This record gives sequence, structure tokens and C-alpha cells, in this order.
Amino acid sequence: MRNLDEETITQAVLARHADMPNGRMKEIMTSLVQHLHAFAREVHLTEAEWAEGIKFLTEVGHTCTSSRQEFILLSDTLGLSTLVTAQNHKKPRGCTEATVFGPFYVDDAPEYELGADVANGMTGEPCYVSGKVKSVTGEAVPNARLEVWQADSEGFYDVQQAGLDGHQGRGTLTADERGGFHFKSIVAECYPIPHDGPVGRMLDAMGRHPWRPAHLHFMISAPGFETLITHVFREGGEYLDSDAVFGVRSSLIGDWVRHEAGTAPDGTSSATPFYTLDFDFILNPAPAAPAPSRR
Amino acid sequence: MRNLDEETITQAVLARHADMPNGRMKEIMTSLVQHLHAFAREVHLTEAEWAEGIKFLTEVGHTCTSSRQEFILLSDTLGLSTLVTAQNHKKPRGCTEATVFGPFYVDDAPEYELGADVANGMTGEPCYVSGKVKSVTGEAVPNARLEVWQADSEGFYDVQQAGLDGHQGRGTLTADERGGFHFKSIVAECYPIPHDGPVGRMLDAMGRHPWRPAHLHFMISAPGFETLITHVFREGGEYLDSDAVFGVRSSLIGDWVRHEAGTAPDGTSSATPFYTLDFDFILNPAPAAPAPSRR
Ligand SMILES: [Fe+2]
Ligand SMILES: [Fe+2]
Repeated sequence: MRNLDEETITQAVLARHADMPNGRMKEIMTSLVQHLHAFAREVHLTEAEWAEGIKFLTEVGHTCTSSRQEFILLSDTLGLSTLVTAQNHKKPRGCTEATVFGPFYVDDAPEYELGADVANGMTGEPCYVSGKVKSVTGEAVPNARLEVWQADSEGFYDVQQAGLDGHQGRGTLTADERGGFHFKSIVAECYPIPHDGPVGRMLDAMGRHPWRPAHLHFMISAPGFETLITHVFREGGEYLDSDAVFGVRSSLIGDWVRHEAGTAPDGTSSATPFYTLDFDFILNPAPAAPAPSRR
Repeated sequence: MRNLDEETITQAVLARHADMPNGRMKEIMTSLVQHLHAFAREVHLTEAEWAEGIKFLTEVGHTCTSSRQEFILLSDTLGLSTLVTAQNHKKPRGCTEATVFGPFYVDDAPEYELGADVANGMTGEPCYVSGKVKSVTGEAVPNARLEVWQADSEGFYDVQQAGLDGHQGRGTLTADERGGFHFKSIVAECYPIPHDGPVGRMLDAMGRHPWRPAHLHFMISAPGFETLITHVFREGGEYLDSDAVFGVRSSLIGDWVRHEAGTAPDGTSSATPFYTLDFDFILNPAPAAPAPSRR
């Protein structure tokens, strides 16, 4: 303990952790220290680079506010969020895949009736979304709770609009007895993740763009099923092969159909072109008992 | 790129880095992503644990101010700072070892004449510090610049004292032609690193104490020599074997001698007991040319 060098320091730190009261925390901190140290040794991190890292993390922290989570953006852009999502939602074949949660969800979105316009004044071309919530055996899942959220035609979520009172482009709906849901919104467009902060500067230095392919977020929950957090992406859109946050799954790409002005699915007459999306979600049964512990 | 899982995500992220303009950044980010992902897979990080991690890092960031660097504390307590210091300051046998810089240095400490009292009103028992700055061949290094800093008897640096105007317990001195230096200060005492923030809560959850053994910080620079950043620790003091930031080296433990009231080394009469410390520093010659690049 009194003669540490870059090799012996790792064991010295782990020795200090021998009596950690929480076994799971000990497991996590042991692996974290080993990998953190292995990284610094492997690249022979210099003191100037270490100082740059401290400065970067501090800036990331200072960029976090009640409406912006820069550490989630960092996790997303380094692929960590996709890794964590994937390893915690291994689903039986046929179930709808999960993807990254992202930083733009809010838990107090307004409740809407089926058929309502969740855009609520958000700018964009109209889009009529419909589908069914089903079990993996094809039966309807009745009355599932659907939360949906999306950005406007300029690529901004409502929470990114300074001074906006109330919610736009997000809502909570309840599917009917036969699993059916439908609502009106606007068509999803590509958008860049917030890139005026340290994560944006990091992407820039790495020669990476900040764009995400067009998508609509869903969180779907029903008793007896695993809650599904996912997106539906637009077939044929840009960035499907270079999503800045590594969220795309082939099975989540939906067919958003463009229609000329005329009669919309809700029977009204649309004076402008509009889109339709029909997409079904297959939920994974929740385990009957709590998931077995790994320890 | 459209069908990522917890195994394939790592290669997908690295593929995105193929054209990174800065080769060193590419090397660092490649290793960082690999170790970050390996950590998350190895412990099978859950979404709740990931969210705890995001929350913790955000709190660490929000705790950083112009006078407090919580990310440095985090690096220090996880042994990363010692690792980086050690691998960047491999010195020839006989040279004084480096140790962690710590978060309490300031670059505008007052200049003092040799013999001055750098405590400048800081509370603590008087201590007279002296020594020589030498080369590894034993010759005097003339006129080295010494920056010293330390905490008070309660364990606080001046920068931690709200409302304190000016500097206490820190100063800059110039050694004489024969390498000699001497100054008055107070004796160093053990202190806990700032532990009222997220790093303190982390240590607590891990069953670790936040204490550092008593020490006096030195930064010593002279033309033709590698700048030395180090501490001198107190022989026989507490926490030498469990320094919260892993900074102790046997060779840096000095003999701080306690004296009863009487004549002090500066010829004055001390009405209270006082300490003396005599400690020499051996500097490492700087390379004649810039250090060769690793690439
Ligand atoms: Fe999104
Ligand atoms: Fe210190």
C-alpha cells in the first residue's frame, strides 16, 4: 500500500473493497476499477489527456439541467445505452424489439382518447398512426397503455422549446378491447441530437455526425407483459445506417405511406398531403415470478 | 448496423470511428469504448444500475465549482490519478518519487523569501521545514522554484474556507544557490477529502473512509529538470496504509520531529512546542530533446 505503481495500484484499490457491504456494488466497482485502469494503461494515458478527460466530464455535468441530460447523450453516442437495452431485453422470437429510451421522455404527458391529435399544434405534415397490440401467440392484448412522443418537423421535442407551455407531440392513449389503437400526429423527420454542448464537440472531433433517422417513440405497458420501450423508424429515410445513437433495428422500420390531399383515415377531408403508418406491437409475457437473481 | 445486440454493438461503434481525423484520439476512444462495453457486459449492468450511474455522474458534475473538483476526487479515490501519475513519471533510481497532484493547488500563491511563514495566519502548531534540492548525482540544483501547500489543523485548505480573502498555508519560494530552502509553516495533520458530496456518499456505500494521512504538498521546478509534484508524509501518522487517494510512497515519508518550547531553528524563542522537518528532493534530469512520441 505504500509502494504503488501503475501495475500494483489496481490490486491496492480492490483490496480496499474487500469488506464492501453490498455484494452487487462490490461486483460492479471491481469490474469498473479493473476496466478503468486497464484503459488508462493500454493507451498510456498522459496527464494532459487525463486533465482533458476531467474537463470534458465536468462540462458534461454542467450541461445537465432539468430539461437536458448530457450524460445520457454521452452514453447513447458511445453505444452504451444500446448495449444495456439489448442485454436487459432479450425477447423470444417474434416479439417487438426494444431500443434506446433517449432523453426526451416526460412522465406527465396528456391523456388522449383514441383518434385524438397528439401533435397538439406541433408543426409538421399530418400523420395517422394505427396498429394493434398483440401477444406472441397472436391474440389481442386489450387496453394496453401507450405513451408516444416525437420531435417536430424542425427536429425539436417540445421540452427543447424555451417558453412553450404545455405538451406537444406526446400523449398517453389506451388501446381498445381488441388491442387496437389509432391517433393523429405529424410525420417523424430526421433530427440531430442536441450538439451544441460537449457531446456535440466530441462527435465533431471524432468526425461523426449527430443525426438520428426519423422515428416515433413508443412505451407500451399492459398487465402480465414486459413493458416495451421502442421506436418505429421510417423506411427509406436518411441515417438508418448511421444513427448517432445506434438505435435502429430492421424489425422496427415501418412503412410510412404518403397520400395526396383527400379523405383521411378519420373520415375528414385533408387539404394537404398526409401520411399513414400501420404498425403492430408484439409484447413479451412478463415472467410469472420475479426474474431469478444472478447471484 | 440495423441489427445490433450487446455483442455486436462494440464493433458497430468502432466502425463509426474508422475515419477519425486524430490518430491519438482514435486510439483513446477505441480503448475507452471497448472497456466501457466490456464492463457493462461483464457485470450484466441493468437499466436501473445504468440510471443510477447517470444520476451519480450528473451529481458529480453539479458538485464541481470553481473551487471544488469532484471528478478529480472521483479519479483520486478510484486510484486512476495514482496510476496516471505513476506511468508518466517513471524515474531513475534515487530520484524523489511523484505522487498525486490533488484538487487544492492554486497557481497564484504568494511569493515568499526563504525563512518566511507561509502559514500566514493558518491555525496549527508551528513547523520549520528545510531541505536541499539536488540532482541524482548529488550536486546542488541552484535556485529551484518551490511551491508548497497544505491544510490547517482542522484539515481544511484555504480555498475551502468560505469568505477567506487571500492565501493561507501556501506559497512560492526560491531555493538558494546551493539548493537550500527553509520556511516556517504549521505541522500537517490528517484530513478527510471533501466527503459531503457524491464521492463521499460513494465511499460511504463502499465501506471506505475519506481520510488522507498528514502531508505537505510540493511542486518543484528548475531548468533542465523534470518538474516534481509530490508530498512529504509524516512518519508514524494515521492512514499511511489506507490513504483514501492511494498517494503514499515509503520514500516520501519524512521524519517530522516534535520539540518542546524553546529556541526555534530561526533563532526566535517559541513559547509553544514546535516541529521540524528536514527533507531533500532529488530531481530527475529532463530529456535533452522533447520526449519521443509513442506513435
Ligand atoms: Fe427521439
Ligand atoms: Fe492534500
